[in-house]
Amino acid sequence: MKSDLDALMQEKNLVALVVLGAAEHNPPMYFFTGGGHISAAILVKKRGEEPILFYNDMERDEAAKTGLQTKSLSAYPFMDLLKEANGDKEMVGALRFHHLLIDLGLAKGRVGIYGHVEVSGVLAALTRLQRLLPDLELVGENGMDSVFIRAMETKDERDVERIRQMGRITTEVVRRTAEYLTSRDVRADEVLLKEDGSPLTVGDVHAKIRLWVAELGAELPEGFIFSVGRDAGVPHSIGNPEDLMRLGQTIIYDIYPAERGGGYFYDFTRTWSLGYATPEAEELYGQVQEIFNRLMDNFDLNTPFKDYQRMTCEYFESKGHKSQLNTKGPLDGYVHSLGHGVGLNIHERPFSGLDSDESHRLAPGVVITSEPGLYYPEKGMGFRIEDTIWVRPDGKMKILADYPYDFVLPMKKWKKK
Amino acid sequence: MKSDLDALMQEKNLVALVVLGAAEHNPPMYFFTGGGHISAAILVKKRGEEPILFYNDMERDEAAKTGLQTKSLSAYPFMDLLKEANGDKEMVGALRFHHLLIDLGLAKGRVGIYGHVEVSGVLAALTRLQRLLPDLELVGENGMDSVFIRAMETKDERDVERIRQMGRITTEVVRRTAEYLTSRDVRADEVLLKEDGSPLTVGDVHAKIRLWVAELGAELPEGFIFSVGRDAGVPHSIGNPEDLMRLGQTIIYDIYPAERGGGYFYDFTRTWSLGYATPEAEELYGQVQEIFNRLMDNFDLNTPFKDYQRMTCEYFESKGHKSQLNTKGPLDGYVHSLGHGVGLNIHERPFSGLDSDESHRLAPGVVITSEPGLYYPEKGMGFRIEDTIWVRPDGKMKILADYPYDFVLPMKKWKKK
Repeated sequence: MKSDLDALMQEKNLVALVVLGAAEHNPPMYFFTGGGHISAAILVKKRGEEPILFYNDMERDEAAKTGLQTKSLSAYPFMDLLKEANGDKEMVGALRFHHLLIDLGLAKGRVGIYGHVEVSGVLAALTRLQRLLPDLELVGENGMDSVFIRAMETKDERDVERIRQMGRITTEVVRRTAEYLTSRDVRADEVLLKEDGSPLTVGDVHAKIRLWVAELGAELPEGFIFSVGRDAGVPHSIGNPEDLMRLGQTIIYDIYPAERGGGYFYDFTRTWSLGYATPEAEELYGQVQEIFNRLMDNFDLNTPFKDYQRMTCEYFESKGHKSQLNTKGPLDGYVHSLGHGVGLNIHERPFSGLDSDESHRLAPGVVITSEPGLYYPEKGMGFRIEDTIWVRPDGKMKILADYPYDFVLPMKKWKKK
Repeated sequence: MKSDLDALMQEKNLVALVVLGAAEHNPPMYFFTGGGHISAAILVKKRGEEPILFYNDMERDEAAKTGLQTKSLSAYPFMDLLKEANGDKEMVGALRFHHLLIDLGLAKGRVGIYGHVEVSGVLAALTRLQRLLPDLELVGENGMDSVFIRAMETKDERDVERIRQMGRITTEVVRRTAEYLTSRDVRADEVLLKEDGSPLTVGDVHAKIRLWVAELGAELPEGFIFSVGRDAGVPHSIGNPEDLMRLGQTIIYDIYPAERGGGYFYDFTRTWSLGYATPEAEELYGQVQEIFNRLMDNFDLNTPFKDYQRMTCEYFESKGHKSQLNTKGPLDGYVHSLGHGVGLNIHERPFSGLDSDESHRLAPGVVITSEPGLYYPEKGMGFRIEDTIWVRPDGKMKILADYPYDFVLPMKKWKKK
């Protein structure tokens, strides 16, 4: 939570945080501004003080709406800086930072730099700034452990309510998708048909999903996955738009919408097979569902997240599958890790990887995914079940949007002969 | 164009370019990959050689689809790097870069760093990498002048066709918006009504616009502006969702959709007043339209873009308005610059600012906006006209999507008494 920032800055010996970039789709800036139509700003938070947002005049109204303390960047006019730089444009960005930091009394100490931005210009400015202010240490932090990713890790009830609302939207989109697919006519060769009688493609389904998400007022800033057959067997394949939708194929449907403007995400996966499934697919899905349920029964407050990754690997290996426990970079079997935190970033702390340290745990107030899966691209199959789970302060594990786990979805206008 | 990169690298004495991040919504990566569902990759292009895309195994299929030469990042396993770093996780990213660059023979020389990413982790890794490879110079370039922004400046006919297609979608959305607004019933107090008889808000119109853009298969990665009254008088105000839509108010409608996944943008603005306009608004709109037309008549191949900014300032000042020519940071009058290049970035070279150098010119093959405007927030008014224009190699200026310039849109069910 935001109130954790000062302690985290103290722990890392940071005198200030500088966040660069837009207010939207930029988690550390969004964390302060709550979004808004600000295309480029500089936020500075000194330890123990409230942040200040430096804005461009054209965005003064949007800056004011954030409710933050604001200052206009027009205090550092481009033409004055260019003159000071003797016409060297590459110096202008550095000089602006220089004056701004000096005005805030930040000429020395460790200053953390953050923001989702084009890195090249920032690197250009910081390299030169470093020469102007040699007593200032410009600090980058890795994304697994930065003060922001730590402060964002624990959610308060208002944050959780926003994630829950995204869960409602997500499951409504999934419900519409299931309803649409199961209502299709089916050709003799088991290909699904559109309203106009032509074959339904994966791309058609993608377009429907995008439209439903937009209708419900959410965004898909990181895309989504709706993939069938072999593509379902490759965890990050989004699906081939030209493929025809057929009965009896595994479908992985992994959808992670966010609030408009880059707010909170929800993360959700179901695996379906339309009309019927092969016995092998039924068996593998059953295994994924079994470990998913076993994990839900076992998740326990403050336990390291990686303990559950180990449990999942051991379970799948006991069923004869490869996993990261005993295979380096497996390409089939259980190939990824169990889950991750969800918030303003689709992937954030805590992480479940076997190499995560014990600070990645099911602490009170974290929101995580649990997403065991099995992947056999050569068999044309993939399986994953995923829900987003709130670790309540009282230790209860709460799935934030309920949705059935049916694997085979019966077709309304088709029956197996 | 991509073929310009080697010469630009030579000019800037860069031995290699390193591009970080996702394939979508990341212009320098998109420039090579053409998009695709790749969440994190490293692309390295040595001068005079084809680029190599380093991918994560889970995204191997998506990496292969780019058609680029690819290598798996599994050649640099996390656990091995962690061991080499004696457990110091902060070193892992630096060591991975270190091995990757050494394997490519890049231990010294100037290497440019690019990509739209969270800057903190990159800065963390690069700071440490610099210590490991002191003969390597990690170079940031400012966004007005980087090799990418220069290579992207000139478009070939295929690029232009994609921008033109986005223009078709943009003007279709605008046409639907005009059709929807002018078909509304109007209350006695001149407030527009929705289908259900309740007042139409700016937020309702925003939702319709978002849906139409999604239906037509495009995205709004940078948002859009549909603002009325005082908000229209502040160039970057996106509009207040709670405001009611009324007759006789100026509406600024600035919409800049992109191809899905972060491809080419189009940029377009019209100013409307529904039903009627005040004489003052008519006069100011007339001035914006006059300079817009005069600019179209005067744009000439290879002329510096800023010459037209000066022309626009001089015109508006002759009409009694403030401009950047003689006022530092004006808050009313003509408050911004004339235009910018449009491509994979919504704002790219050439720029028209009075401080731009003469390399920012109407070179053959650039695609620019022309967007003069007048802003009087205290009068509750703003005006802007904008089209996206291709500077054809034969010197003709071609607006890429035609749309009428009517200011007052007559209401179908309302007549002035």
